[in-house]
Amino acid sequence: MKIEMICTGEEVLSGQIVDTNAAWFANVLMDHGLELQRKTTVGDRMEDLIGIFQERSKLADVILVNGGLGPTSDDLSAEAAAEAIDVDLVEHTGWREHLEEWFAKRGRPIPASNYKQCLLPDGAVLVDNPVGSAPGFRLKINNAWLFFTPGVPVELHRMVEEQFLPFIKQEFGVTQATQLTKLVTIGHGESTLADQLTALPVPPGITLGYRPSPPHVEIKVFGRGDDAIAAMPDYVAVIKKTLGTAIVTDRFPSIAEEVHNLLIEKQVTLGIAESCTGGLLSSQLVEFPGSSAYLKGGLVTYANTAKEEILGVAKDTLVKFGAVSLETASEMAIGARQKLGSDLAIATTGIAGPDGGSDEKPVGLVCIALWDGNQCWAQALQLSRRTRGLVRVMSCAVAHDMLRRRLLDQDPIVDYPFITRVDAQMLSSK
Amino acid sequence: MKIEMICTGEEVLSGQIVDTNAAWFANVLMDHGLELQRKTTVGDRMEDLIGIFQERSKLADVILVNGGLGPTSDDLSAEAAAEAIDVDLVEHTGWREHLEEWFAKRGRPIPASNYKQCLLPDGAVLVDNPVGSAPGFRLKINNAWLFFTPGVPVELHRMVEEQFLPFIKQEFGVTQATQLTKLVTIGHGESTLADQLTALPVPPGITLGYRPSPPHVEIKVFGRGDDAIAAMPDYVAVIKKTLGTAIVTDRFPSIAEEVHNLLIEKQVTLGIAESCTGGLLSSQLVEFPGSSAYLKGGLVTYANTAKEEILGVAKDTLVKFGAVSLETASEMAIGARQKLGSDLAIATTGIAGPDGGSDEKPVGLVCIALWDGNQCWAQALQLSRRTRGLVRVMSCAVAHDMLRRRLLDQDPIVDYPFITRVDAQMLSSK
Repeated sequence: MKIEMICTGEEVLSGQIVDTNAAWFANVLMDHGLELQRKTTVGDRMEDLIGIFQERSKLADVILVNGGLGPTSDDLSAEAAAEAIDVDLVEHTGWREHLEEWFAKRGRPIPASNYKQCLLPDGAVLVDNPVGSAPGFRLKINNAWLFFTPGVPVELHRMVEEQFLPFIKQEFGVTQATQLTKLVTIGHGESTLADQLTALPVPPGITLGYRPSPPHVEIKVFGRGDDAIAAMPDYVAVIKKTLGTAIVTDRFPSIAEEVHNLLIEKQVTLGIAESCTGGLLSSQLVEFPGSSAYLKGGLVTYANTAKEEILGVAKDTLVKFGAVSLETASEMAIGARQKLGSDLAIATTGIAGPDGGSDEKPVGLVCIALWDGNQCWAQALQLSRRTRGLVRVMSCAVAHDMLRRRLLDQDPIVDYPFITRVDAQMLSSK
Repeated sequence: MKIEMICTGEEVLSGQIVDTNAAWFANVLMDHGLELQRKTTVGDRMEDLIGIFQERSKLADVILVNGGLGPTSDDLSAEAAAEAIDVDLVEHTGWREHLEEWFAKRGRPIPASNYKQCLLPDGAVLVDNPVGSAPGFRLKINNAWLFFTPGVPVELHRMVEEQFLPFIKQEFGVTQATQLTKLVTIGHGESTLADQLTALPVPPGITLGYRPSPPHVEIKVFGRGDDAIAAMPDYVAVIKKTLGTAIVTDRFPSIAEEVHNLLIEKQVTLGIAESCTGGLLSSQLVEFPGSSAYLKGGLVTYANTAKEEILGVAKDTLVKFGAVSLETASEMAIGARQKLGSDLAIATTGIAGPDGGSDEKPVGLVCIALWDGNQCWAQALQLSRRTRGLVRVMSCAVAHDMLRRRLLDQDPIVDYPFITRVDAQMLSSK
């Protein structure tokens, strides 16, 4: 089955919108063991739309068309589809009644422009839109089934998951059961992970995919057919054993979300002290609803005076070891736990760059400390050849991993092949 | 001139990488008054590559091909281009010497795989890559000039700006001077901005574009030709007068970067207290190098106890008015300024959702206060029908705008059509 995608709209073509729908769609196909063969983006011109529907429908089996179903004058997908096969647009009375009912319930008149959305090419099959005013539709042109979907992401997602995928699986006899397991890693490159996994025998029907998305590389383990699905648990266990500390979660898309959930599950509270990460670490946790259950607070102590006055870092420590040192990081964590009254405290201090480095302490040097009231683990990383943004993102990932491992009663400090550790220390309660 | 783009690579097609190169390229074209007509993405299969080069080169004048110039076996662009016009790959001795010199300087042997990058289709013109090992090249196939560029963004950017644009402008006689002014707005929708601006007469040769990118909508004012450029300053002044408080910067891509620079230029220091924004406000400033010059610190006081203990918010205030109130926000700002010893202090507290709202204080209610030691401005916004992420992003934008306006000696509290203000107060020194 040859699957293509056509994205329409000047705002997509001209880069006013980064086209996340296309990436999302290709990813979902991969999750179902299907493959996108070509993606084409065109603007809003009628002749371009007609031309591309006629051209691609001769060469593909299934085409997902995205965008151009809105109520305004530059939404031309339905009209172009009708012209491409030389039929009229006809009103879908069911959808008209649905829209009228929707607006009547809200006591509002139906805007004239919305009536246009009830017009579908003659012969098209309506595809329900449970979350918007634009119906989707499917239509056979030449060899291909074209599936017309709205550009609004949530509407596209519902249509693809609830109607597009079941339809094409049935139409093209893709009836085998499939299963996908995602393993999220940090501190490795795609190639080092692949090198380790290609050495393992892969059970028939199982394929591996990799998706780098800093600070993570996600490994997708895809199984097609009952035998492959039966073999999945053992194979995933072997992968986990092989990759060891690389895998930081197999149930959430990010390490931050894993830590967020572990803190809730284990009812452990957290205090944060940040210098170079500047609020990013706490912000990544606050992103998830429910973080107020464990997050006592975060103290961004960018200036040395703030490290002293807010966190109680000793002036001597700052003078003797510097703001970026295992000692300062440790005292920041100890101060944060005391100030915020949390069970655990984590602290970061570093030189994110691009300026501010020295021979002794180059740009990319970051110290992270974790204090639980009994033990303080501190490590110094050298995150060289990375942008300021990436230094901060990687620092947060390692900080999260220290928390994650401590919450699982594992040693918080471990080796990562792609992250250089230059120093570490562990102090017991003082 | 018909310009198209061909993006290659399984990782782009399959959504493993969101294709920012394409959005970047279309944006740059628009900045130069040029237009992208079609973008096609294909994988790494040799026959797909040959097919698309042959197909699109009959229909376009210029095609930017991106990706597939790396050293590995799935980098097939040069080979496919050669096959498309039935010529051999020949070694470019100049580039070979350049690579050998580069590796020799670093005392490293040249990896065998890099020699492959010296092979170009016979007749191709080398396009220099000042920042990478893969040379670009241009080649005429059928009607079109195909420009082959690497997928690494920084390499693509240099080639497009330094070589692609000058070449096509000369080749196709695009000699008119152009000028682009970008105006960044907050608190408006694309349509409300457009409605106001379409009512104005537009000087000949000037066009307007809009790019929504929350929390901003960017307005692009593009002038082509000497007359249009001469008319730009007056027209931009009229736009600024018409849109009034909507425009928050005409020199940086974001309000955060504008505030960052204003704080440095005016040598004013800042302290931050955050509840619902959870570190995002400080993190947005720490993103820029040099923020240590003004940022004294940020205090994420998520729990009420932290608001009391860290910031000195009165228990009475929290009990009587609640954590999300003008009074609490004001006391948070006052406490942050005192604790951190800054000139200005800004505070946010709100209900980001999706849970935690009540009838009296629904999800999306956010209070923001600014304290300069003499006056305290506080406002309550109702950011309804927005995700948790968007509530936080919009709150930060308004907080930044309060800072920006105070730094410019303007009233920190203003109306925005797309943001509902439900309450405000201004207190003088107490």
